[in-house]
Order: sequence, then structure tokens, then C-alpha cells
Amino acid sequence: MIGSEFKTNNINIAYIGGGSKGWAWTFMTDLAIEENLSGTVKLYDIDYEAAYRNEIIGNSFLKRKEIKGYWKYYAVKTIEEALKEADFVIISILPGTLDEMEGDVHLPEKYGIYQSVGDTTGPGGIMRALRTIPIYMEFAQKVYKYCPDAWIINYTNPMAVCVRTLYHIYPKIKAFGCCHEVFSTQVLLAEMLKVLKNIENVNREEIKVNILGINHFTWIDSASYKNIDLLPLYKDFADKFYEEGYETEENEHWINNMFKCANKVKFDLFKRYGVIAAAGDRHLAEFMPSWYLKSPEGVEKWKFNLTPVEWRRKNKSELEKKSLRILNGEEELVLKPSGEEGVKIIKALLGQEDFITNVNIPNRGQLEGIPMDSVVETNAVFSYNSVKPVVAGRPDSPLINIMTRHVLNQETLLEAVIKKDKEIAFRAFINDPFVDMDVDRARNLFDEMLANNKKYLDKLFC
Amino acid sequence: MIGSEFKTNNINIAYIGGGSKGWAWTFMTDLAIEENLSGTVKLYDIDYEAAYRNEIIGNSFLKRKEIKGYWKYYAVKTIEEALKEADFVIISILPGTLDEMEGDVHLPEKYGIYQSVGDTTGPGGIMRALRTIPIYMEFAQKVYKYCPDAWIINYTNPMAVCVRTLYHIYPKIKAFGCCHEVFSTQVLLAEMLKVLKNIENVNREEIKVNILGINHFTWIDSASYKNIDLLPLYKDFADKFYEEGYETEENEHWINNMFKCANKVKFDLFKRYGVIAAAGDRHLAEFMPSWYLKSPEGVEKWKFNLTPVEWRRKNKSELEKKSLRILNGEEELVLKPSGEEGVKIIKALLGQEDFITNVNIPNRGQLEGIPMDSVVETNAVFSYNSVKPVVAGRPDSPLINIMTRHVLNQETLLEAVIKKDKEIAFRAFINDPFVDMDVDRARNLFDEMLANNKKYLDKLFC
Amino acid sequence: MIGSEFKTNNINIAYIGGGSKGWAWTFMTDLAIEENLSGTVKLYDIDYEAAYRNEIIGNSFLKRKEIKGYWKYYAVKTIEEALKEADFVIISILPGTLDEMEGDVHLPEKYGIYQSVGDTTGPGGIMRALRTIPIYMEFAQKVYKYCPDAWIINYTNPMAVCVRTLYHIYPKIKAFGCCHEVFSTQVLLAEMLKVLKNIENVNREEIKVNILGINHFTWIDSASYKNIDLLPLYKDFADKFYEEGYETEENEHWINNMFKCANKVKFDLFKRYGVIAAAGDRHLAEFMPSWYLKSPEGVEKWKFNLTPVEWRRKNKSELEKKSLRILNGEEELVLKPSGEEGVKIIKALLGQEDFITNVNIPNRGQLEGIPMDSVVETNAVFSYNSVKPVVAGRPDSPLINIMTRHVLNQETLLEAVIKKDKEIAFRAFINDPFVDMDVDRARNLFDEMLANNKKYLDKLFC
Amino acid sequence: MIGSEFKTNNINIAYIGGGSKGWAWTFMTDLAIEENLSGTVKLYDIDYEAAYRNEIIGNSFLKRKEIKGYWKYYAVKTIEEALKEADFVIISILPGTLDEMEGDVHLPEKYGIYQSVGDTTGPGGIMRALRTIPIYMEFAQKVYKYCPDAWIINYTNPMAVCVRTLYHIYPKIKAFGCCHEVFSTQVLLAEMLKVLKNIENVNREEIKVNILGINHFTWIDSASYKNIDLLPLYKDFADKFYEEGYETEENEHWINNMFKCANKVKFDLFKRYGVIAAAGDRHLAEFMPSWYLKSPEGVEKWKFNLTPVEWRRKNKSELEKKSLRILNGEEELVLKPSGEEGVKIIKALLGQEDFITNVNIPNRGQLEGIPMDSVVETNAVFSYNSVKPVVAGRPDSPLINIMTRHVLNQETLLEAVIKKDKEIAFRAFINDPFVDMDVDRARNLFDEMLANNKKYLDKLFC
Repeated sequence: MIGSEFKTNNINIAYIGGGSKGWAWTFMTDLAIEENLSGTVKLYDIDYEAAYRNEIIGNSFLKRKEIKGYWKYYAVKTIEEALKEADFVIISILPGTLDEMEGDVHLPEKYGIYQSVGDTTGPGGIMRALRTIPIYMEFAQKVYKYCPDAWIINYTNPMAVCVRTLYHIYPKIKAFGCCHEVFSTQVLLAEMLKVLKNIENVNREEIKVNILGINHFTWIDSASYKNIDLLPLYKDFADKFYEEGYETEENEHWINNMFKCANKVKFDLFKRYGVIAAAGDRHLAEFMPSWYLKSPEGVEKWKFNLTPVEWRRKNKSELEKKSLRILNGEEELVLKPSGEEGVKIIKALLGQEDFITNVNIPNRGQLEGIPMDSVVETNAVFSYNSVKPVVAGRPDSPLINIMTRHVLNQETLLEAVIKKDKEIAFRAFINDPFVDMDVDRARNLFDEMLANNKKYLDKLFC
Repeated sequence: MIGSEFKTNNINIAYIGGGSKGWAWTFMTDLAIEENLSGTVKLYDIDYEAAYRNEIIGNSFLKRKEIKGYWKYYAVKTIEEALKEADFVIISILPGTLDEMEGDVHLPEKYGIYQSVGDTTGPGGIMRALRTIPIYMEFAQKVYKYCPDAWIINYTNPMAVCVRTLYHIYPKIKAFGCCHEVFSTQVLLAEMLKVLKNIENVNREEIKVNILGINHFTWIDSASYKNIDLLPLYKDFADKFYEEGYETEENEHWINNMFKCANKVKFDLFKRYGVIAAAGDRHLAEFMPSWYLKSPEGVEKWKFNLTPVEWRRKNKSELEKKSLRILNGEEELVLKPSGEEGVKIIKALLGQEDFITNVNIPNRGQLEGIPMDSVVETNAVFSYNSVKPVVAGRPDSPLINIMTRHVLNQETLLEAVIKKDKEIAFRAFINDPFVDMDVDRARNLFDEMLANNKKYLDKLFC
Repeated sequence: MIGSEFKTNNINIAYIGGGSKGWAWTFMTDLAIEENLSGTVKLYDIDYEAAYRNEIIGNSFLKRKEIKGYWKYYAVKTIEEALKEADFVIISILPGTLDEMEGDVHLPEKYGIYQSVGDTTGPGGIMRALRTIPIYMEFAQKVYKYCPDAWIINYTNPMAVCVRTLYHIYPKIKAFGCCHEVFSTQVLLAEMLKVLKNIENVNREEIKVNILGINHFTWIDSASYKNIDLLPLYKDFADKFYEEGYETEENEHWINNMFKCANKVKFDLFKRYGVIAAAGDRHLAEFMPSWYLKSPEGVEKWKFNLTPVEWRRKNKSELEKKSLRILNGEEELVLKPSGEEGVKIIKALLGQEDFITNVNIPNRGQLEGIPMDSVVETNAVFSYNSVKPVVAGRPDSPLINIMTRHVLNQETLLEAVIKKDKEIAFRAFINDPFVDMDVDRARNLFDEMLANNKKYLDKLFC
Repeated sequence: MIGSEFKTNNINIAYIGGGSKGWAWTFMTDLAIEENLSGTVKLYDIDYEAAYRNEIIGNSFLKRKEIKGYWKYYAVKTIEEALKEADFVIISILPGTLDEMEGDVHLPEKYGIYQSVGDTTGPGGIMRALRTIPIYMEFAQKVYKYCPDAWIINYTNPMAVCVRTLYHIYPKIKAFGCCHEVFSTQVLLAEMLKVLKNIENVNREEIKVNILGINHFTWIDSASYKNIDLLPLYKDFADKFYEEGYETEENEHWINNMFKCANKVKFDLFKRYGVIAAAGDRHLAEFMPSWYLKSPEGVEKWKFNLTPVEWRRKNKSELEKKSLRILNGEEELVLKPSGEEGVKIIKALLGQEDFITNVNIPNRGQLEGIPMDSVVETNAVFSYNSVKPVVAGRPDSPLINIMTRHVLNQETLLEAVIKKDKEIAFRAFINDPFVDMDVDRARNLFDEMLANNKKYLDKLFC
């Protein structure tokens, strides 16, 4: 691939959400250190104040001399203002508030259901999907109206449901979802080379992988570094660290401790399925029946964390304090690459440099055995104004089985929202692997969780 | 459809299995009272004595003047003798013995898993499938060699796995599976007409139904009697009898008390899915997570029976005594229609009268949303030398979800046997809804159950 | 199948079109001699006078004592009046007038293209489709508005395009298309039994056939009478009459001489493809390249007729005269079964008697190898409020090839109308097998034919 | 994508065919100038002398100091010797001799059929396919036996049929087909940038294209250079040069004059279908009905050449003379990049550098609307031991129509050879767009052409 890097100016980006800071700052930082792009970012958040603080922080970069990319930030008060004339739309919202999320994660605990994240599957993921779908239906309609040709990059979870909804409402939308979970598995494979082969300083981008799966339940059935086949190595690696686990150096610093794991779930899944699970253990565990999440003690044994919403509240408040410190000039955001690929992808879509990475996008044939049009995660080629998924092949039947279960549940949830039919939603609820209980208890939990979401779902399911 | 009934003589039927008597006698009786067919039945059973007793009983019919169909029975010592020149092959075997079945049903109980039948899904169904597949691989090879144009009618469970294996080995085989579970739902609907509408004497054949599903997990999404739509009626019916249940008169006499139920599971499933489940409650319960089978007490509450293998042993010994009484002339088999359709289907395949009924056959497009080639149950048109399934449509996503789970598990089991790979079998095992437990416990159960099958599986998974 | 015939009264039928008499009279006659139906027929035709004359004729039946079915006819002035409260809608229209049809059939002759019918394929079929699609889009919208639950029975050509359009606009429409072309092949097979086997008095309904194909290009890959396999017999039959052809007795009287053929095309196609073509030679010839239609002389050699529009004009004027004679009491319509199945189908849909026959309906899996949702012709089971196609299997690749060509052309024509894009229509035009010429000449012909349709297409392709 | 170029030594390549020199020399040259590869090439040709001359020429490179890649050549006497231990197998054979090819191309001319190449479609392509399939069946069996893990790179035509046959016989074969036809369209687009935009020195690799189609009938529905969308430009370009055509500078020198064209067919197809045809005009013309190939005069008007086999004979003899001159040291092969990508692909498969280019490979989902498993041409990602096609999307219906016609014909030809059934082959023959004639004439042509192939097909169709 011959590079064709060049400068593109006057790009219009709409950033929807981001008031929670983490993701927005990451993106703003990556923009600031990229020399071949410049333009305008319109920040829209339902919390205007939060957006406005981001505007100030973003614009403050212009005074720092280490920056290479010049961007002007504007907080706007309506989503329409943000979307109009946008070339790219970044969506990273929290669907609902931490109050709803608290119910998602913790209400099921009374019923013996422990969720390590609660944003993708399980009772929590289902409730979150029900809240999210109507919001994304509206996003799709607004994109159609205000910027039908823009590229939409989604970071919100539940990823698959978000992207599926956008395409359902506006089938020609140019949308896809980005998720960094695969990256940490590439990092793990790079470290494995050091541990087992004394090959040092391998970048995760040099680890070539074939990705197949659905978001947070992605798998690697072939992986290589140069001409080294990594699958046989991984077998040794998983055997060696099966008991104690293996913690990557990088992972620890990446975002936060809470998200750390010792990859024990990953090694266990390799033992069972013979292919490499490629997401954080916290996510992977939620797709299986109660193997890894039977109890808080069991989780500890598997060396990963449940993520209490209390922690999220604390984290949020710390970010807010940090935000104030930045606004007061007491602290500066460090300008170093985040490891996220959003900016690289934008460059590719602008024609600057072709790029292959994993992406969440409707199945057009790239994942055999999974229904067409459901949102799957595989590699894709990004180039000028184009995302083309790579045909990843067919997972083994047992994995198709687990994936199909979640894919069809997502379809059912979408149908429930479109038809405004609570009973259809309940059918998805009881099909979730975590809801393995007497059906009347399941009903109680469902109703309790709906009640916790009444601000978002009452009109829908009245 | 204009009838074209006529006499067909010199038909050659091979009956494989049947040593356990029940099914063989039923079939022999139906043949004896059908006036338009006659010929020869070769009886093959791995227990030659049992086949020989059936020969004597079958031939004794010739002395009774109420018979209309003249058939000569021969017990043969090899399956080859039975198959050579066969026009029809009936297969109704017990894969393994009651000893293996005892393990299928009762070993999981130590792990808190209660199975009402244990022959289709669950740990029991999985073990039974593993025993059955190699036997059916051999059947397919022998049919290909000795009677490639014969029609194969399967009555053995696990039905779908049996039929799937036959087609996998010999893709042009003319095989299908018959199951009477749907009939009792038609009987229930006929009685509903009496209860709710005072319409009496409706034959179950007059209840027209669209069947969609997989064996023992079949559903009816439209049903009518003359010009009466039965779905809205069924809603009232299910509401009315939701608590106490409803027991059909016929059901009781049909085969045996042990198989009776009060249709409470059926009513509950209707409430949840809005379509009519069309199999016995004992079977339906095994496809759901632990809703109806959490404990023996729970089962009692739902008013159906677990079928202990002890009962099967007793029943077997009673049939043996009965067999001796018949041979001694102390008792006679009653010659009345059994309610099974095997003979009617044979007549249709001989061109005597077209016939529509439900059948298990590979998916060629008749069941949307379920993988092609997996064995599904829908209506089919039987006519001269032809079985053509009727396009049944697409089940709702939540039901496709449950079906797919079992269909892919069946595929996985077939793959495990073909590749002789125990680990693949274990992947199916842990994907079964009943095996919702810590994976190490699951492994223990799996190994214990394999040990109980070592006569059948040791060579396979050595 | 146990019959459940009973009386249904107060049926509301809307008859759209029929001003050209032939089809309407046939249907009215069949209604008059059916004892188990009665009700009201609303007649709507863009020529109100014609509808009104049919009203008088229809109502005059009530005075004849041989009738068994009592129907009241009303000519109505708007289609809305006809559709409101309709249980069944019969559509048999001429899309455009004989002036447009004259262009369809005869303009291409200047370019060396001879079409025997010109209503399904070829330049004529394409122009007719372009005229028809907008009309059927409107029909679908009106059905959705005025009688969304009614059953729609289409007799108009081009059949597949009509039905496809209805489903495209209103996906839940209960519509299908009926065509009698297969029946004459059943008659041919019945006569074959007489000629080769001395079996007399076989009804065409006793000839069981598996139908696969698209309208007017349907094929039979298995056929039987009782237990006689008709395929080997047909081989002898085709050989015997290959040179001179064979004319059925019935065929001659059925509608008219002009439609007669000696089945030589049919025998020739059997020789080439090994399966039985099941439509009139006039239609079949139009699906092949110029084999049978190279020149008027060639057609004569193959012993079938080109159908000049001049003949249609004459026929129309004769029917009008006949209509006047009937109105004046100088002549009476003979009340004998027409051989059409519309009334039988209505009875089946009302739950009176199940019925299997061939039907044109979107592909839901019944025809393997042909795109889903395209309109195909196979057998279907008609029962209470239900049409379920029978899985017919997969035609051989060379026949799939020819079918796909026309199916995709129909899709392209629909797309051209929806997008109002003349160029897309031209792409279909040049993909037709008959338009094998220099592309500039093709363009001239296309433009000339469009000009002849300007009353219908000008607004569309302006 | 981060480059990971490194040296790979001791590669074993089997080169099957190549006795005709052109392709073999090209490949040997490219190897000689690539610094990161070295190893052994075993040359096998049914003409051992030709292979032996190539051995001498190949080894003579070792004496030239400008070479960077060190390869040892061995002519071998059996294909087994070549295949054993091969890492890569290059197949570039002439199926049959120029005598058979003479019949392919020129026998149909008596029937008014002019073929510009005669190796892919048309009567010539069909006969060539019939000769080729048995040869490739044997290749597949030998690869399975001697080097089951080798990568097979096919250059032989008919490309799709060759690759399809390999996969049919050995489904896990790692084979694909390379064709340079798309490259010249990239060159054309690069020159267009110069002509219309004064952008000079654009490499064809910088022209990013989405490829969809089947070999020699490939299409580009999006193309870009950096951030310039080339589709609108191409519209202007096609308009501007529609009448006189446009000849690329490079094209002329690339292989030979005979293959030159003025791209008039390409511009005409753009006008008709709105997307860019991406193969030489000589090939494209053969997929359409007689638009461009009505007569030799017509061809001249469209400014491309018919390729008489006489020319091929002359060319062959010139290459032989050149070969002798090289052997005698009178001439040297010029060592410059050929423009072919075989060596680049080998490097990618060895893990040296990822690479995206167009490739012929079975459809696993990359080309929507075309049957799975048929061989299609799209982009693919080549990386370590992996070729993953890129999902190219769905061509417009009219193009799917034309492609399907040829794809199904290829399937039919494969079936004819497997079943050794001449009649099935004839069904493909009469489905070819060029065989639009009276069926008896078609039969004569078919028989005449078979007679010309009797050395190859007599045993097959006896």
C-alpha cells in the first residue's frame, strides 16, 4: 500500500456526548498531535456545561506549542447545530445516567446475577439497550436530515445495538462502531513474544489478526507476527499462565486499574474453544453462562473485577475535579497518543492513508453463519470515503451458537422498541444466558428493572 | 385432491428394531386393518429372539378374520437380509440399552438437573445422540448399499439427529422422521372446540395447523377448524385453564399414563410467546432453561411427570409378559387404529392418496431463520414417491433463538462423532441450556456420563 | 385430508377489470354453479359501461334455475367502492389498450423480433411491465387502505411483475397469481396415458406434478398418475410425436384456436433439458433465444401461432357483440365449469376444502437457486385463510440460468419505475434475450416503443 | 499498516507450465530483482525441452550482477517432482495446443460468431473450459497428495473455471487466481488525472478501486486518488473520448500491440451501466451479446483487435527464436519489473508486507447477489499465510444478470465434466450469449468443435 498522506483542512466534526470527559479528551488529544488534519469540532452534550468546559479545554490546546493539529472547538446547544455540515460525527454518550446504570448492574445481584460490566448482555445490557435504541433512532433521523453523507463513528455501548439501530432507521447511513477491546489482546500477543521468544518491542499493530465475532465477544482464529504463526505459541502461553494468569504491562496504565485483568478467562476460553478470545475478561465473562460470574468470590479467583457503579460515580467526580483544575490552569492534559484509532480512521476516510482494523458494522457477508444485517465485528479496509469489511470466515458451531443467541436477542430488543411491545422485550430478557431462573422471578426482576428506567421507558411501554 | 385409492401388493418392508414391542405391534396392527396394502415384513432386531416373537405374532394375524391386509412376517438375522429389496424401511430402535438410558436421565440429577424424558436435549439427549450417530451412520451406509431407493421412516429419538445423520452420510437418501407429538395438540384443540363452543366430534385431522419448529419443540402459528380461527379461542382456553390445567380424554388412553400431562406448560408457553407449543409438556419443558424442571416438586406443580427409567424397565417387562401371553394364545392384540400415521404415509408414497402431515426432514427452505440442511419439523405433502415440505414461514426471533441453540448443538455433536473429537462434544454439552454450572462441574458430569456409555463411545473417543 | 365442505354466505368480492368480458364471464359462470358460496360481487372497470353490462349479465343468472350459487352484482364507479369491505379481490385488467399492445407485439417485428404473445418477456413484455407496475403500485396502496385483510387473486400479465409489485408496496398483502398454463400440460399428460397405455378418462387433477419455475416458464420434474411415474412415459411420448407434434383434444375447445399448439416446442425442450416444460408453446418459445421465433415461417414449422393484435381486436369486437346479444336475450352464457380454479381456491381460503395447485407468489424458500422474494410458480397448499407454497426443489443450473435472467430483469424494471429512471429500464431491455442486436438499434427500438406508450410512461420517464 | 519486511530464504516454488516462455520469463525476472526472497524453482512443463531451456535461462541470471534475488532453477520430468515440498505452485499452462485454440476461435466464425479472445466465454471459452477442467481436477488431486499446504497461484484461463475446479476437488486448497486486466484500468485512471487535472506521475497502485465481478468482467463502482473521487471525472473522460477513444501510453508497451485497445468499449459500457468496466476491451466485448463483435468491421470501428490464432503461432515462434538467442548468449532478458504482482503476493503470504489487490477466489460472501462458492474477482487482503477477500458489495441487477449467466454456465460445464455428460455441456453451450442461433445449427457447431477437441474430450464424452 503506497502511502498518500497529505494535509486536509476545514474538516467539520460533530462530537455528540463526551460530557463525561474521558473519551472526549482522548479524542481531542489525538487530534492535537496529528499534523495532517485541522478544522472545527462542534461539541454537543445534553449537559451543555460539560460540553462548554470541553470547548475551553480544546481551544486551550491552541496555545501549546507542541500541538501539530489546529482545531477550533464550539459547544452548541442543539444537536442540529452540531450535525449541520458535519463531515464526521462522533457519538459517545451514556444512555441514561449512572442512576439507571446502577439498576442495570446491581438490581440483578439480589437475584444472584453478578455482571462485571452490565452494558452489553445480561439484564443490565438488555435494559441499557432498551434505553439506547430510541435515542439512536432519533440520531439516525437527524443524521438523515442534517448530514446524510457524514461518517458516523460510534463509541457508545451496547455497540452492536447502537449501530444496528442506526442502519435500521437509515439504511444508507455511513456508520460504524469502534472498540479497543481487540487492541489489548494484540498487546498481550506482543508481550507473549517477549516472554516466550525474547522478541522485544513489538507494536500491537504488527500483530496481524483475523477477527471474527460480535462486539465484546470477538475471536481470533489466526494471528501472526511477521512469519511467526502465533496460535501454537498461544497454546503454550495459555498453558504456562493458566493458573496464575498473566498481566500485561501496558494494560495497567491504559485507562484504569478497574479494567485490568489477568487474562485467566481468556486462557480458559482458549482451552475450551481452541481459538483466542479477543476482549477484556470482564466482557467475555458476560457472554458465557455463569462460569466466571457465579459469585463475587468466583470473580476474584478468575482475577478480574466487577465494576461497581459506585466506582463509576467516584471516577466521574474525579474527572470533574480534573476538568476544573484544567480550566483553572492548575493541570494540563498530557498530549500523547491515546492508543485509540479514531483519528487514524478519519485520515483513512479522507484518503490520506489506507488502514485495516476491526470494526462493528452490519453483516454483509463478512461473518458466515451469523444472520445478514446483524452487527458483527471483523477487520475492515478503510480508505477514501469507504469502509469495506474483510471476509473473516465461519466461526466454529459452538461459538456461532453463543453469538447467535445474543444477535437474535438484539434483534428482539429492536423489535420490542419499534413495536413498543414490552412482552417482546421480556422474551429477549428470558433468553439471556444470565436469566436462568424461574420465570416468575424473572418477571419480577424485569419489572423492577423497568421501574428503575421509567424516565426512559415509560412512554415506550405504557 | 381427488382420491386415487387402489390396491398395492407385494410390498417389501424392513422393520429395524421393534424388539421392545410397543412400536412394532402398533405398526403390525395398522397394517392388518388396511385393506389396500399387502406384502412382506422382514423383522430385524439386535435381539433376534424379540424379532422372532414378533414374527409369530404378526403371522398369527393371518388366522383372524377381521383382518383386511395380508402380510407375511420374517425375522431375519442380519440387517442386510432385511434391507435387500426393501421398498420401505422402518427404524425404531433403542440406541443403547436401558442401562445407558438410566445414566442419561439420572446421573445429572446429582447435579440438580432433572430431565422429564432425557432423549432429545439436556445431558441425556446429548449422550443419547453421541451413541446414536455412529449407529445411524452405519444404517445410511447399508441403505446406500442394499436399498438405495427405499423410503426410510424413522421413529427413533433423538429424531433430528437420526435424520440429520442419514442425510449427512447419504445425501440422496429418501428418509424422514415421524413423530406423534403434534397429534395430541390437535386433539387438545378439538376438545377445546367442545369445551368453548359446544362443537363435538371433531377429528384431530380436521384441525388444520401450520407447524414450525424442530422435533419436540414444534409450534403452531395458525390453526383452524373449518372457517374458525383457533388462535383467539386458544387464548381464552389457556387463560381459563392456566391454573388447573386441562387434561384431554384421549391422551390418557393413548399410550400410557406416564406420558399424560395437564398442558400447563403449553398454556404457560402460549402466554409467553403468543403461539401454540405443539408437543407434550414433558418434551417442551426440556427445551427451556430450568423454568419447569427446577425440582421434582416444581414438576408436580406443572402437572406432568418425570419418566424414571425404572418405569421403563417395568413397562418393558410387562410387554414381555404380554408377548408371552400372546404367543401362548392367552391374549390377543386388539386390532384397532393406533392413531399413528405410518401406514397412511406408505399409502401416499405408493400413490394411493395424497396426504399432508408434519414430518422431520432437512431444511430446504421450509423454515426460515433456521440453517439450511438442519432437520426441522413442518408440514409436508406426501404423494407418489415424493415428500415435499410446505414453507412454514419464519418463527419469531425469540423462538428461532431457542431452536438455533439446539440445532447448532446437534451439528456440533455430529461433527464431534465424525472427527472423533471428545472436546467438540464437550463444547456442545456446555452449550446445552441445562448445563448451566461451573465449567469444572460440567466436566465432571460429562466424564461420568461418558463412562456410563463406554460400551458405545470408548472406541469413538479413545 | 378430511373434507369439511360447508356453506359460506355473504361473501364480498371485488372484481377489478373484466370489461373485456372473457375472464369475467368465466368467473361469474363458475360462481353460479357452485352451491356452497353466495354473496356480492362489485364490478369495477375503467370502462364503466363494460362493468355495467357485466352487472346485468351476472344478475340475469338469478333467473335461471340451473344455478346453485346466488350472487348479486353491482357495477361501481370507483375502485374504492369495490374494495371497501371486500373479502376477495380479483384483478384481471388489460394494462393499457390494444393500441399499446399493438406496439408491444408488432413494433419489434421491423427489427426482426417476432413475439408469439408479447406480454411476459421480450420487448413487448418489458413495455407492458413498465405500464403495469405503476397501476399495481396504486392497487397495492388502495388495498392497504380499503381492505388490508382481503385476499387478492391476480390474473393479469405480466403475472410475476404484478404480484412482485403488490408485495413490494404492501409487504403483508395476501396476494397470489393464478395461471392455467400448467393445466393444459396436465391434460396433455392425461391424454398421453390414453395414447400410450390405453388408460382412459383420467382427469387432469389426477395428474400429480411438481411444479418449478416462473410464470409461463414452469417445469415439471416429477409427475405421476396413481403409482405410474410419468417421466419415462413422456420420454417415449416426446420421441414418438417429436416430428408431427401432438394436439390435445381438450386444448382446442378450451379458449380458442389461436392459442392452440402441437406441443412441438414442449417436446423439443424435453429433449434438451430432460424435464417437462409446463406452459403453452407460445409462452415457452418467448423465454428462449430465437430458436422457435426466428421468423413467421419458423413458427409455422413449430406448429404454434403468433398472436397478432389484429386478432385480439376482432375477438374483442365479437365478445362485445355477444355481450349485446346476451343483454338482448338473444343468447345465453352456457353454465359449465370453465376449468379455471378461482372458485375452488376461494372455497379453500374460506376453509371449505383444502386444495393444492400451482400459484405465483414471492419466493420464501420454495424455489432453491432463485432469489428470495422474486415471484415464482410452484405448488401451494390452500387452506383456511392461508396459502403455503410447497418446497419444489432446485431446477438444474441451465434452467436456473434462464429463469434468473428474467427474474433479475423484472427486478430491474421495478427499480426503473420506482426510481423513475429510463436508463435503468433500458438496461433491462438490452438484457432481454430477444434484444440481441447492435446497441444503437436497440436504443431506437426502445425509444420507438416508449413513444408508443407515452400516454402511460411520459410522466414516469419525463 | 506497519511494514515488516525481512528476508525469506529457501523458498520452494513449483512452476507448472511456462513452456510458452512469456509468463515464465516475466516471473523469473521479477524474482531476480527482489532482494528479500531466495530459493529454488522447479520447472515442469509437458514439453520438457521448453522447461529445460527455462532452467538454463533462469540459472544464467546468477551470473548477472544486477540481480538481488538468488534462485536455483531445475527442470523436472514429472509434476510430482515439482510439487513435492513446494511452498508455492505457479500454474500457467495452455490447456490443449494452438490447434485446439484455433478451433475455439475460428470454427465459430463460419457461423457468424467473432471472438476477440475466445478463452473465457463464447463457444471458444466453453470448449477451452471442457479441456481444462479434467486437467485441473488432476492438479487438485496431486496438490492434495504432494503439497497440501502449498499456496497455488493460477494464471491460466479460463481463470474462474480453473480455480473453481481446484476448490471443488480439494475444498481446503489454498488457491487463487491472478489477472492483470484490472491494472490497465488503473493505468487508464492515472492517465485520466493527467489529461483532465494535470496531475502527473500517479502510480497505478495509488488508484484505489473497489473491484466487483468475475474474471474479465470486473467492474469498479468506486475509485479514488488521494481524496479525489474518480467516478465523476471518469464520466467527463468517457464523454470526451467516447468517439475517438483513448489509448494509454503504457498499455502499448505492456505486452504487445495485439492486446491494445482504445477503451471505446469501456466508455460505451460506462455510458450504459454507470460504473467502470475494468478489463481490456477484447475481454469485455465477449461478455455482451453481439454489440461489439457483430463483424470484423464492427470490431475495427470499436478500435480493438480480434486475436487470430495465426498471430499466436507467430508470436510463439518468435519467442522460441528469442529463447535460442538467449541460450546462445546473443541476447539477454531485460531485468525490469514486469508489472505483475506474483512476487509481491508471495512476499505478503510469507509475512513480509501486507498487500491488497484483486484476486479470483470462491465467493464466501464478498460478492452479494452471486452464488456462494462460484469464483469471483474482488479485492483481497494478503498477509502471512492468508488471503481474505474484501466485501465488495452488490452489483446492480443488470450486471448481476450478466455475471450470473456466465457463473451458472461455468457450474454447468463443471457438472458436465464430473458426470461425463455431453448433453449437460450442450446446455451450457446454448446458454452462452454468443450462441444465439437455431438450435440445430448450434448443435452442428458444438459437434464440430468437439471433434476438434477429440484428443482431449473423446474419453470424457464417449
